[in-house]
Amino acid sequence: MSFNTFGRVFRFTTWGESHGPALGAVVDGCPPGLALSEEDIQPWLDKRRPGTSRFTTQRQEPDRVCILSGTFEGRTTGTPISLMIENVDQRSKDYSEVALAYRPGHADYAYDAKYGFRDYRGGGRSSARETAARVAAGAVARAVIPEVRIRAYLVELGGDAIDRDAFDDAQIDANPFFCPDAAAAARWEAIVDGARKAGSSVGAIVECVAEGVPAGWGAPLYAKLDSELASAMMSINAVKGVEIGDGFAAARLTGETNADPMRPGNDGKPIFLANHAGGIAGGIATGQPVVVRVALKPTSSILTPVETIGRHGQAADIRTKGRHDPCVGIRAAPVVEAMMALVLADQKLLHRAQVG
Amino acid sequence: MSFNTFGRVFRFTTWGESHGPALGAVVDGCPPGLALSEEDIQPWLDKRRPGTSRFTTQRQEPDRVCILSGTFEGRTTGTPISLMIENVDQRSKDYSEVALAYRPGHADYAYDAKYGFRDYRGGGRSSARETAARVAAGAVARAVIPEVRIRAYLVELGGDAIDRDAFDDAQIDANPFFCPDAAAAARWEAIVDGARKAGSSVGAIVECVAEGVPAGWGAPLYAKLDSELASAMMSINAVKGVEIGDGFAAARLTGETNADPMRPGNDGKPIFLANHAGGIAGGIATGQPVVVRVALKPTSSILTPVETIGRHGQAADIRTKGRHDPCVGIRAAPVVEAMMALVLADQKLLHRAQVG
Amino acid sequence: MSFNTFGRVFRFTTWGESHGPALGAVVDGCPPGLALSEEDIQPWLDKRRPGTSRFTTQRQEPDRVCILSGTFEGRTTGTPISLMIENVDQRSKDYSEVALAYRPGHADYAYDAKYGFRDYRGGGRSSARETAARVAAGAVARAVIPEVRIRAYLVELGGDAIDRDAFDDAQIDANPFFCPDAAAAARWEAIVDGARKAGSSVGAIVECVAEGVPAGWGAPLYAKLDSELASAMMSINAVKGVEIGDGFAAARLTGETNADPMRPGNDGKPIFLANHAGGIAGGIATGQPVVVRVALKPTSSILTPVETIGRHGQAADIRTKGRHDPCVGIRAAPVVEAMMALVLADQKLLHRAQVG
Amino acid sequence: MSFNTFGRVFRFTTWGESHGPALGAVVDGCPPGLALSEEDIQPWLDKRRPGTSRFTTQRQEPDRVCILSGTFEGRTTGTPISLMIENVDQRSKDYSEVALAYRPGHADYAYDAKYGFRDYRGGGRSSARETAARVAAGAVARAVIPEVRIRAYLVELGGDAIDRDAFDDAQIDANPFFCPDAAAAARWEAIVDGARKAGSSVGAIVECVAEGVPAGWGAPLYAKLDSELASAMMSINAVKGVEIGDGFAAARLTGETNADPMRPGNDGKPIFLANHAGGIAGGIATGQPVVVRVALKPTSSILTPVETIGRHGQAADIRTKGRHDPCVGIRAAPVVEAMMALVLADQKLLHRAQVG
Repeated sequence: MSFNTFGRVFRFTTWGESHGPALGAVVDGCPPGLALSEEDIQPWLDKRRPGTSRFTTQRQEPDRVCILSGTFEGRTTGTPISLMIENVDQRSKDYSEVALAYRPGHADYAYDAKYGFRDYRGGGRSSARETAARVAAGAVARAVIPEVRIRAYLVELGGDAIDRDAFDDAQIDANPFFCPDAAAAARWEAIVDGARKAGSSVGAIVECVAEGVPAGWGAPLYAKLDSELASAMMSINAVKGVEIGDGFAAARLTGETNADPMRPGNDGKPIFLANHAGGIAGGIATGQPVVVRVALKPTSSILTPVETIGRHGQAADIRTKGRHDPCVGIRAAPVVEAMMALVLADQKLLHRAQVG
Repeated sequence: MSFNTFGRVFRFTTWGESHGPALGAVVDGCPPGLALSEEDIQPWLDKRRPGTSRFTTQRQEPDRVCILSGTFEGRTTGTPISLMIENVDQRSKDYSEVALAYRPGHADYAYDAKYGFRDYRGGGRSSARETAARVAAGAVARAVIPEVRIRAYLVELGGDAIDRDAFDDAQIDANPFFCPDAAAAARWEAIVDGARKAGSSVGAIVECVAEGVPAGWGAPLYAKLDSELASAMMSINAVKGVEIGDGFAAARLTGETNADPMRPGNDGKPIFLANHAGGIAGGIATGQPVVVRVALKPTSSILTPVETIGRHGQAADIRTKGRHDPCVGIRAAPVVEAMMALVLADQKLLHRAQVG
Repeated sequence: MSFNTFGRVFRFTTWGESHGPALGAVVDGCPPGLALSEEDIQPWLDKRRPGTSRFTTQRQEPDRVCILSGTFEGRTTGTPISLMIENVDQRSKDYSEVALAYRPGHADYAYDAKYGFRDYRGGGRSSARETAARVAAGAVARAVIPEVRIRAYLVELGGDAIDRDAFDDAQIDANPFFCPDAAAAARWEAIVDGARKAGSSVGAIVECVAEGVPAGWGAPLYAKLDSELASAMMSINAVKGVEIGDGFAAARLTGETNADPMRPGNDGKPIFLANHAGGIAGGIATGQPVVVRVALKPTSSILTPVETIGRHGQAADIRTKGRHDPCVGIRAAPVVEAMMALVLADQKLLHRAQVG
Repeated sequence: MSFNTFGRVFRFTTWGESHGPALGAVVDGCPPGLALSEEDIQPWLDKRRPGTSRFTTQRQEPDRVCILSGTFEGRTTGTPISLMIENVDQRSKDYSEVALAYRPGHADYAYDAKYGFRDYRGGGRSSARETAARVAAGAVARAVIPEVRIRAYLVELGGDAIDRDAFDDAQIDANPFFCPDAAAAARWEAIVDGARKAGSSVGAIVECVAEGVPAGWGAPLYAKLDSELASAMMSINAVKGVEIGDGFAAARLTGETNADPMRPGNDGKPIFLANHAGGIAGGIATGQPVVVRVALKPTSSILTPVETIGRHGQAADIRTKGRHDPCVGIRAAPVVEAMMALVLADQKLLHRAQVG
């Protein structure tokens, strides 16, 4: 089965393939009266856009978003918002190799096993190009949660981690890696250049922090805030792991060292003395920053030939030519932000439904 | 909002609090004609049952399951299966302390922030006792997927990892830790005993492997198999991280070292030479074993006093008395298995819906 | 497939068979802090209860509801509310005839065609006994919408309609037919007695009016208020038709005669000069009374032998012995009320989600 | 809240306003490998297209459908199918009157009451132009259920019913009214012409029959086949009533006269001697033709001035100028067919999910 809708009350549905005429999203359940125009969405798409530095794929896509419905005189009407992005640079390459043999690590074999059939051009529906639609939908979600500030950035690339003491928020948009540590960014240039030149690829870890999430958002037990975030993040191409707060490291702490003690605050809200929990307890936001980390594998699109099989079962070797990101983790940062916004917008409306 | 239903086609809804008269699950969408009786469910509950060793809580709950609907003459009828487990050992302790102050790391504060009100007895709805209902539902799910074999076990406890070379499947049920490494199990006795005596707690990492999942299960893009597993696992009490296959370690590999090459097999299916992907590509099963790892924090129920605030905002210290698991990760293993089964049953039916 | 959950945000799931040990409902998404106890639910069950007059089935069921979860100290907590009703009077009759041959008009054949198998005792899951669970859930829904007053009553029985000019609200609970016209009620006694004595059955039309529904509730386009009501009502046993406002009669009006003109009111709300629309326009409540009418067929449980086939395809004659309602439309009135309450509670929360 | 997705497994989401740049549907969950191109969809849109006779609105819309995703080499891939129809003939009229005052019977007031704001151009989202997207989606649904033959036709217009004895299937497409009775069609010309010239409007009743639906489709209890059909039909603009089989007339029958006796058939399936039930028992298809009837009110767009209020509460008179259908029931026939197909496609896949 194919399930291309995400969300419970604030929902979005994406459609489109890498090499089709266009791709898009329909956002449903958005509150009425919010200011929204293409200009509010485009900057987020531009952050994710390919071809902007030598560290990403050279496919040139303007990724211009068009709002086809759901707004009137610059405001949302409460009806479905249809967003469309035309594909422009579908290079007319020869896909015969990919059509005939499966690229290991790609979705090629799995799609054929499921559907008996696939659009092999540029990965078809399994291409990360679909994430442009998520970013567009995410921009709508941001309009729903003005109280929240979301930042995603890379904390590790090719196994090289940032220095937390050198964390500088202003650096994140100052380098092509969404890297908050200037020194690490400099090192990463060499790592990505090396991978690109070698026809190889590297992985990355993206961290995302949402500040301003009010205590109470979250829908236990099976739409817990952390559960929804895990689902949202794991649905992003190349993601293999998700953690909240201290995540896997928490498994190595004791009850004492993992505690987030509370102290009375002046505004009636608690002051937390730590945030091991990443802002979520029992699936519900505590009012602290919500912290998620996401692991992205190195893309399987590499120039080194890999042993594989063909569509008809024959032995084959394949190497992935064409234009690819040497580190898909970089351009994932805006996508992670978008998914955070989409989950939070949904949770805000769900919370409002139940408690007014 | 409260969302206590999980699944798309094979769905279950759980209900009940730690200290209410009973808890249960309603399983809907189960195929008809499957053999099912209480005897098929009880063994799985017995694996999760508290009070069976000194390493778990001493609360004595028989956890007897009762099927109230949905079967006839020992077989499922295709109608909702209502499963109920009575609570027996709700100790009539004084809850005044927990009622008045929030236990840091627990859901106490978050529930009050959300609902303005909570059943504080034993954690109410946020108690891990709810997972008994999941295990019961999971036993029904197993009947739907006889082709799949699921095993969950601990690979790390209190920061002490197993030796993968000493992995022995037969050990898993031979010690109270679901530990596949006999030597590690021996060490863990000391760790858990130490934590228990100190009134402290330790974390753990559970790994779960599902063999026999056919290539093709999975519902891209927003009900991908890995996305659904992430959601399912993150909804379990105390879970802070989920990874598929190599997970976070994959972020440190290159495209070459992360590849899972394929070779023609005799049965028309590929032979995979590695399984970094954990059996899932593009959100769809590849036919390899599905591998998930889950990080559980140390429980926040510790005897060491922790700084906190009271229900009315006042400063307070709290220590959690009562009966608790010094390592909630241990009894999580059967719950992780159940969630794996529940996700796979749903995905099997979804796949069947779409491709016949 | 089996889908036993209704609702989008305020949801309920029912379970149970006619002759199983119990039946029940799990209500999820209910706001916290509402006063709720068994005493708030029982009166509604008592209205639907069988065996209270000679005009309904003589099965004696106390229909005592038990709240198993979701409340604390007499108030809802925002967690799932599990409601259970034990079956008491499952008469140990011989079901061999029904097991072997299909009763025309009943669900017997369809269930076997679908599931290959059925619980034939008293109709199993297809029995109208399941509606007790709806009525219990509906009582919870009423707590969510205190601003709304709901009344359902019969406007026709066995083809004999009430006189609208004789409509007396006080009569509805003063006779065993929920009939607002005393003279009609008197005539209906004879009709139902006649049908009962002849081993026959008669149909009925139930009308339900909800006053106090604020303008704005309704979720276009595919969860329109009228669309949800149609789905809810058509899911009730024996219902074959649903209409809103003038319904089928509106198809015979002209644009002029069907208009509901508006005039300015003192409170900023319009005064409507008519209500042909039944309180709904474009799927959204207008603030006028919401009016639904529901047609119920005569039950197929009759003593006259009917030509049929057996489970193995053989020709057979069957007549339905046992205890049955000669007019299922009578006891449907409380069920129609419950479904109205359940739809409105859901729509209230949906509206709140989107517009605050 | 706004819910613009219909279906459980085979789902479609529509978007677009009457006077926006385009409208469309995203169909998700469609099985892979089905032949599908624009040529398969266009004929159904042409049947619903406005401006084809003097009996419908004179708005000229080519309603050309474009498939933007989900197919490859002329076949469905199992991924979302995005269908778009551009609006061409949005006449640049002055909407100031409709913007300022509410047309009684239209959704104008209700939309403002809900959203505080509306796109008043041509009715915005509440316009029946949206049904073009349903018809396009319905054409995809037809590809999923080749075993089913669906026909919708008018059985009554302006209170004038067809003669059942004169029913001629071949007539349905031979006149502009989808009328199976040639003599009635002739009379209806005069009725509609009269209404059009008087600036008035008339209602209609559409009947839809689906032959070939296998016994077993239907998902009790809250996605019963009749319940889903009722929801689907009631969501169509101007529909005020839905009935299955004998519908409201069944309420006037007795158990004997309403029975559908069965007799053994040669193929192991029963021969039914009647079809009062309209092919559905217990919410499940019996294998007989599924019969639905739908009542459509006369459109509220009439030239006679009606008393109303303005956006700011002031008294006003309004008459609806512009291009309108004097009988919206006519063009509803293809929409009713589409909704039937969409419900049946979903039910087929649901059934397959549960019973293989």
